[in-house]
Amino acid sequence: MSKRRLLSGMQPTGLLHLCNLEGALSNWVKLQDDYEAYFFIADWHSLTTLYDSPDLIAQYAYQVAIDFLAAGLDPDQCAIFVQSAVKEHAELHLLLSMVTPVSWLERVPTYKEKQAALKAAGSSYGLLGYPVLQAADILAYKADVVPVGRDQLPHLELAREIGRRFNYLFGDIFPDCKALMTQFPQIPGMDGRKMSKSHSNAIYIADSPEQTQQKIRLMFTDPNKLHRHDKGHKEGCAVYEMLNIFGRADLHEDCEAGRAGCLETKDRLADLINERLAPIRDRRRELLAKPSVVEDILADGAHKARIAAQQTLAEVREAMGVR
Amino acid sequence: MSKRRLLSGMQPTGLLHLCNLEGALSNWVKLQDDYEAYFFIADWHSLTTLYDSPDLIAQYAYQVAIDFLAAGLDPDQCAIFVQSAVKEHAELHLLLSMVTPVSWLERVPTYKEKQAALKAAGSSYGLLGYPVLQAADILAYKADVVPVGRDQLPHLELAREIGRRFNYLFGDIFPDCKALMTQFPQIPGMDGRKMSKSHSNAIYIADSPEQTQQKIRLMFTDPNKLHRHDKGHKEGCAVYEMLNIFGRADLHEDCEAGRAGCLETKDRLADLINERLAPIRDRRRELLAKPSVVEDILADGAHKARIAAQQTLAEVREAMGVR
Repeated sequence: MSKRRLLSGMQPTGLLHLCNLEGALSNWVKLQDDYEAYFFIADWHSLTTLYDSPDLIAQYAYQVAIDFLAAGLDPDQCAIFVQSAVKEHAELHLLLSMVTPVSWLERVPTYKEKQAALKAAGSSYGLLGYPVLQAADILAYKADVVPVGRDQLPHLELAREIGRRFNYLFGDIFPDCKALMTQFPQIPGMDGRKMSKSHSNAIYIADSPEQTQQKIRLMFTDPNKLHRHDKGHKEGCAVYEMLNIFGRADLHEDCEAGRAGCLETKDRLADLINERLAPIRDRRRELLAKPSVVEDILADGAHKARIAAQQTLAEVREAMGVR
Repeated sequence: MSKRRLLSGMQPTGLLHLCNLEGALSNWVKLQDDYEAYFFIADWHSLTTLYDSPDLIAQYAYQVAIDFLAAGLDPDQCAIFVQSAVKEHAELHLLLSMVTPVSWLERVPTYKEKQAALKAAGSSYGLLGYPVLQAADILAYKADVVPVGRDQLPHLELAREIGRRFNYLFGDIFPDCKALMTQFPQIPGMDGRKMSKSHSNAIYIADSPEQTQQKIRLMFTDPNKLHRHDKGHKEGCAVYEMLNIFGRADLHEDCEAGRAGCLETKDRLADLINERLAPIRDRRRELLAKPSVVEDILADGAHKARIAAQQTLAEVREAMGVR
C-alpha cells in the first residue's frame, strides 16, 4: 500500500529558531518516514508581507533550506523544495480563485488582524488571497495530512472548504485533508512572550553557542530573587519554563533551594540548549560550505514535487475545461 | 529596429459574432503586420463567470481559435494561443497580486456591476482579481499597445497602474502600454440593442447564410411603416443602421421612397452581410475539417508566447527575490 501524503511549509521571513525547530521541524523529521512527505519554503507567501525586501526573501529561502536539512530532514526520504520553483502552485491558486467566495476570505481572522495593522496603506489582493494560495499548496499534492500549529487551523479549515467546493462543482478530485496538531508546548522567548522573529526574542539554530548563552543570560526570571541565596520561584521564570519544556526541571531545583543564582541556572540552560543544537549546528556549518549540494537537493525536491503536482493539475484542468 | 509589441484577447464565452469581427478581429488582422502581435483566447478569464460550464469553455476556446484564423489572423505573422497554455500568466498574476491594493480592485466599475448581478451568491476571489489577471496578460509580454473597446479602458488603466507600482517597488521592468481604441461603430443586434452574446441578438460568423437571413428578417425596423408603399424612416430602424455602418445606406433609399418593403431591404442587408462573411465562412469550414492543423497552430502560438513571457518572468522573479 502506498504511503499517505503529508505536506507542510514555512515562510522564509527569517532564520529558524528554537520554537520552529521543536514545534515543527523535529516533528517533521519524525514523520518523514511514515508518509510520502513534501516540505516547502513558502517564498511566495512571504511576499504578502516582505515584498519590499526581495534580497532578504532569496537569502532566507536558502538559509531555511539549510535549517531544514541540518535539523534532519532527509532528501532521500522526502521532497524539500522552494515553493516558487513549482509553478503549479500559482496555476492552482488562480484556478481555485474562481471558486472561492471573497466573503470567505474577508472573514479569516488573521486577515482582519493584518489588515488592521496595515491601516491606511491597505492590504493587497495577495494578502486577502493568502488562504487561497495555501489551499493550492495543499491541494496540489492531494495531501492527506498537514502538520500545523494552532494558529494555522482556520487557514487549513478554509483550504478544506475550498477543496470541497471544487469537488462539488467539478467532481471528486481532492481528498479531505486532516490537521496534525503540534503537541510540543510553546517555547518562551527571552522576554517570556512566545518566541518569535517579530518579537526579537528568539534563539536561532544558526546562533553560535556564545550568542545562545548571552541571549539566555538576558532571559526574564523570578523578580523576587535578588540574591544568590534567595529561594527562586517557578512562576514567571522563563528559564524554569524552558528547562521544564526540555524535561530538565531538575536543573532548576538548586535555584529554588537557594543553592544557585540566576546566572548559574541560566548557564545550565544554555549548556542544555547548546548541547541539543550542537549536532544540528555542525551539519549547518557543513552545508553552508557546500552551496551546490543544497541547490541540488532543492532542485531534486522541486522535481519530485512537480511530478506530483502536475498529475493533480492535469485532472483539475480537464475538470475545468482549460489547458 | 524591432517591432513594437501588441497584445489583445477574447474570452471563449461563445462563438464570435459580427460585432467581435468588425469591432476587433478585422482590426487585429490589419495590425498584425505592423507589430509583434500576440492574440489569445482568454479561457482562464471566462472561468470568472462560466466556471460551471467546463465543457463549454473548452469547446468555445477551440471555436474561437477557428474564428480568429478564419477572419484572417496569420499564424506566420502573429502568435495565436490559448491563455491557459501559457502558465506564466498565472505566475505573474500571483506575483502582481502581492503589490495590488484590494481597494483598487473594489473600485473597478465592472466589478461593482457584476457583484450587484450576483447578489446573494457573492463574487469570487477570481472575479475581484479579474483586472490583476488582465494586467498579467499584458505585462507578461511587455506590450506597448493594447487594442481595446471603450468598456475595457478602466481595466487597461488599472493594468498600467499595477505596472507602475511594480516598477516603483522593484525597478523599471514594465513599459507603459497604450490603448488603441477601436474606431468601428457599435453594431446593433436584431433587437436594436448592442450586439452581444448575452442578449441573444447576435449574428455569428459561424451562422449559415440562411440563419443569417432569418435573423435579419427578425430585425427591428421603423414601426410606422406598415405597408410596402409607406415611406420608411431611418430613425429607430436597426436595418438602416447596419446598412449605414457597412457603407451601404443607399440600399435603404428604396424603403424611404416607398419603393421597397422591409423584407426586401432586409434581404438586401442579408446578402451584403453574407457576401462579406462568405470567404471567412469558407475558411472556417476548411479549418473545421482539420482539427490537427488548428491544434498545431495553437501549440506553435503558445510556444512563441512562452518564449516572450519567460523572458519577462525571469526579470520579475529576480527583482522580487523568488525562483
